[in-house]
Amino acid sequence: MNPTRRLAPLPLSDVTVNGPFWGPRLESNRRHTLPAISEEIQRIGMYNALDLDQPLAPLPFPRGKDGVTPVMFWDSDLAKWIEAAAYSLHTHPDADLEAQVDALIVKLVALQQPDGYLNSFFIRRDPQAKFANERDWHEMYCAGHLLEAAVAYFEATGKRDLLNALIRYVDLLASVYGPGPSQRRGYPGHEELELAVVKLWRATGEPRFLAFARYLIEERGRQPVYFDAEARTREADPGEFSQRTYEYMQAHKPVREHEGVVGHAVRAMYLYAAVTDLATETHDAELLGVSERLFTSLVDKRLYLTGGLGPSASNEGMTRDFDLPNLQAYAETCASIGLVFWAQRLSEARPSRVWGDAMERAIYNNVLSGVSLDGRRFFYDNPLESRGGHERFAWHPCPCCPPNLARLLASLGRYVYSASGDELAVHLYAAGSARVTLGSQSVTLSQETAYPWDGNVTLSLGMASEAQFTLLLRLPGWCRNPSLAVNGEPQDLQSIVQDGYAAVTREWREGDQVRLNLPMPVERVYASPRVADDAGLVALQRGPLVYCLEGADNEGELHSVAIEESATFEATFEPGTLGGVCVLHGPAWLDDSAAWGEPLYAFAPPRRKQVLLRAVPYSTWANRGAGPMRVWLRQTSGEGR
Amino acid sequence: MNPTRRLAPLPLSDVTVNGPFWGPRLESNRRHTLPAISEEIQRIGMYNALDLDQPLAPLPFPRGKDGVTPVMFWDSDLAKWIEAAAYSLHTHPDADLEAQVDALIVKLVALQQPDGYLNSFFIRRDPQAKFANERDWHEMYCAGHLLEAAVAYFEATGKRDLLNALIRYVDLLASVYGPGPSQRRGYPGHEELELAVVKLWRATGEPRFLAFARYLIEERGRQPVYFDAEARTREADPGEFSQRTYEYMQAHKPVREHEGVVGHAVRAMYLYAAVTDLATETHDAELLGVSERLFTSLVDKRLYLTGGLGPSASNEGMTRDFDLPNLQAYAETCASIGLVFWAQRLSEARPSRVWGDAMERAIYNNVLSGVSLDGRRFFYDNPLESRGGHERFAWHPCPCCPPNLARLLASLGRYVYSASGDELAVHLYAAGSARVTLGSQSVTLSQETAYPWDGNVTLSLGMASEAQFTLLLRLPGWCRNPSLAVNGEPQDLQSIVQDGYAAVTREWREGDQVRLNLPMPVERVYASPRVADDAGLVALQRGPLVYCLEGADNEGELHSVAIEESATFEATFEPGTLGGVCVLHGPAWLDDSAAWGEPLYAFAPPRRKQVLLRAVPYSTWANRGAGPMRVWLRQTSGEGR
Repeated sequence: MNPTRRLAPLPLSDVTVNGPFWGPRLESNRRHTLPAISEEIQRIGMYNALDLDQPLAPLPFPRGKDGVTPVMFWDSDLAKWIEAAAYSLHTHPDADLEAQVDALIVKLVALQQPDGYLNSFFIRRDPQAKFANERDWHEMYCAGHLLEAAVAYFEATGKRDLLNALIRYVDLLASVYGPGPSQRRGYPGHEELELAVVKLWRATGEPRFLAFARYLIEERGRQPVYFDAEARTREADPGEFSQRTYEYMQAHKPVREHEGVVGHAVRAMYLYAAVTDLATETHDAELLGVSERLFTSLVDKRLYLTGGLGPSASNEGMTRDFDLPNLQAYAETCASIGLVFWAQRLSEARPSRVWGDAMERAIYNNVLSGVSLDGRRFFYDNPLESRGGHERFAWHPCPCCPPNLARLLASLGRYVYSASGDELAVHLYAAGSARVTLGSQSVTLSQETAYPWDGNVTLSLGMASEAQFTLLLRLPGWCRNPSLAVNGEPQDLQSIVQDGYAAVTREWREGDQVRLNLPMPVERVYASPRVADDAGLVALQRGPLVYCLEGADNEGELHSVAIEESATFEATFEPGTLGGVCVLHGPAWLDDSAAWGEPLYAFAPPRRKQVLLRAVPYSTWANRGAGPMRVWLRQTSGEGR
Repeated sequence: MNPTRRLAPLPLSDVTVNGPFWGPRLESNRRHTLPAISEEIQRIGMYNALDLDQPLAPLPFPRGKDGVTPVMFWDSDLAKWIEAAAYSLHTHPDADLEAQVDALIVKLVALQQPDGYLNSFFIRRDPQAKFANERDWHEMYCAGHLLEAAVAYFEATGKRDLLNALIRYVDLLASVYGPGPSQRRGYPGHEELELAVVKLWRATGEPRFLAFARYLIEERGRQPVYFDAEARTREADPGEFSQRTYEYMQAHKPVREHEGVVGHAVRAMYLYAAVTDLATETHDAELLGVSERLFTSLVDKRLYLTGGLGPSASNEGMTRDFDLPNLQAYAETCASIGLVFWAQRLSEARPSRVWGDAMERAIYNNVLSGVSLDGRRFFYDNPLESRGGHERFAWHPCPCCPPNLARLLASLGRYVYSASGDELAVHLYAAGSARVTLGSQSVTLSQETAYPWDGNVTLSLGMASEAQFTLLLRLPGWCRNPSLAVNGEPQDLQSIVQDGYAAVTREWREGDQVRLNLPMPVERVYASPRVADDAGLVALQRGPLVYCLEGADNEGELHSVAIEESATFEATFEPGTLGGVCVLHGPAWLDDSAAWGEPLYAFAPPRRKQVLLRAVPYSTWANRGAGPMRVWLRQTSGEGR
């Protein structure tokens, strides 16, 4: 473990991602999701809420538990939209979009108080309440998102207005909260500012921002917990916290003592992403070890097959090890996006299949499930089974997921590649290209592939003259028999693979070609016997894609389907289905309801009939209206049962 | 269908129920449950709340949704305890118990207002609020339970104080609520008064009480619904009803138009019990048909294998047809008790296996699960699966179930037999005896059996001289091959069975003996393919008893168990287990967690090892502390899977 080794994502302007899978998805994101969010946030009144010339409308959502209203989060939703727009401008310059962002930034900046304070809810609606309830009121969470937006927009356009405003605001926050004798020892109830402040440190090189990130992370969970004192200052009873436990926001103990991922899933992901950043930026091997262990325990005990996490709606988060209900799965879209952020940072510190596989699993399944193929409708929670009632929304009172999806997809290139001075890592396979300086040479890498529909990937290198560097190629854990050839010459993977990445080091030259073959038969997946909800069940997976049955494609009720252990499934690419997907077909037995009759219970099992199943990628479900869906299927060893 | 035909239960003093199964249960009820409830209701302050000499303590439970506090139900809990005590006094005279009830009745009667009003909550805590919110505040519900108690105590002791008080109160209610021009067209939000008023009519023969029952039932659900007007009178918005739909209390449409059992399960059961009473008392074939159809649809579409009903906690009631989740099953003890009340009344109108089987299923499974073997600890909800967290309580803020269990068990004899002038029906098999006048002869019937541990039942008749009458013997639906002999002579069941009852009509004489043989092999039970939660699963049943696996008896996690379709299970009576029960043993496969290793998902199924299962009656689960439990088990056709 060497936390000083560090890969960094490439600038988005140096990466393209396209091809049959990602091309349409990214175009939907840019052409439909970004404008749809913009329309909705104006319609709902978010713009007017910023505008000092506009009277303030009544609170559209009353305050609920702990005095929280979704309006408190509006700055974060605006900010994620700005951030997504900024990423999009790198690859698709758009004067209208940029003008729209500029106008929004003018409004935001105009709100800033003389002391640097910048939060539209507290400035406009509740000026007396600022800094009074970091536990519940999302004040530093909003600051973090505004800061991520400011850094992204500065990097995309060079414009500094929002960045300067946020620097002043961060300086104010770092003067109010900190370890000094006259400071409050507070930190965010909803983590987010931590990772944003690291971005600010990277963008500016100002050590005070890294120090602030370190303070926020190291102070978290120290006894006595700040939120107790804060509640008493408000003359509230600290025990009357609706979530009952500080595990909810990972403040139950100091981060270095955390033993597993607990509480609100999105908060945990944002925290551990920041923890990983801090570990690499400060060369803190112990802290990196904490992050790696927590990630591994999450993957081994609490991650859905689809890369979703946080089964419970009541805390939007974690419960117990191996508690993975399918029908009731919360598995929030934002939590999987947060997992991608965390996995990316671990991959920057030390590439390993553990993080890369989880990142790929999340992106190709739970994350993409969160948005319809046309980019206009969204899921907040992503169950692995539906009995027909789970429908996408065009908008949500707590609209965190749509702009989170938009910013992830608009910056997908950051997750495909990363590089150091003499290494280029390919974490994900996706048609497109990258430009990067390696061994002082400007190198282009182009990726030709129909992945994830096909496991053949051809990487072609271009450069003016020879250069020595290492290509790090992730060998996905789902692939049993990967093979690799350089300029047609097969490579001995055994000797060059470490932690699931093949490292090909050589003098590269113009026209060199690497062919990676990742055979992707249809696989049956089984869960650990500790997972009660998947006992006796099987899922179908091909490549990184988890498949599901939908009522739209299949006869009978989906719980009545049982597939034979010996049955084979065929994968067929169907250009006309769901925008073009590989569909799986295979035989199965169906319990025959019609033959059963009236009684609810009987002493003989249902009669069965043979049917042909049709399974589609989980990421494309619910694109034909709401309907029944199942990922985990019953299995049988024959007609008997 | 002939609603004028009517069997009636026998007086409790003419019935004994004992034997190896019921003896200990009924003794626990009398010796432990009754005193335990008495202690708890005093401890919690219910006695003091009645006592005009005592200052009123602060409300121990604050008002919640719709201004309801559990204290509003206290009269009903006291009343059910009085009713249970009254039943017990029939068979087990007890001067101390009777004195305790007398003292409680003195307090209750002393509270009565000059106009007859009698509800301790409104008299003591909120006099202005009476008759203001029948939708939510359980006023007539409490009146109904007090009335049932008054009738039972009068029948047990001949004492009329409580009965007279309740007659005055019912007369007040019937003057406030009714069809007259100066009356309010109200009825109970929580049904219960209806069936109690029928009991009053039967006890007194006063037609005005039957007329009031008819009004309450026929008015229910008429448009516009009374609760709308009532809310407006309170200056409340009728739309702000926490349960959102009047289906919750079966007031969505008139009873005669009901198409299925919906809403709060206990309310539905009490209503339809009363509807059945009204139909038989008024010879209303149409109304009886409504009741029969509703019961049949419940049994065919919404009843757990254990006789539980109402899967959902949020409305304590019904959801959709075939929605029968096991882990989350609410299946309130009181709802199954209510089902027994309804089934009993249908059996009085027209004996049929449909009602008798459901009554037996409920009593032997979901109802008895509601109380520990020692009679001291209770379940409110009775899931069909537990992962270890479901524990019995000694007391509950809403303690409806313990006294409901106590009154059912103390009056069990009413459910075993019923009779008309020339018919004696045996609905349940249980060791004991009955005395009844048939064909002008005083007849005794003694039942010798170890049922439900064994299916042999010997019925011996005693009488001074010959008498012509019919014995109606229920042939349980779970029994494939019943046989019947009279004085050693086998009977042709085909020719004498109607609706699942064998009718043996003859000149009976002293010493006649009927032997019923109900073979009870271990049966595998399967649910309709429409029940998603039981798909691919099997349950074990022997006689009327549904079995379950408990963690205490079995190796490994219960979801990891799969039984072979061809495996046989042996039933063994174990005197030392759970007070003496038949235990089932058989082989099964267990997914081997230890052999699985770290990953959460893999491409090969878990390895399996052979284990010996041990299953115990569901009614006896959780008598060895909280632990995992499962009724529905995975099934496999061999080692393969």
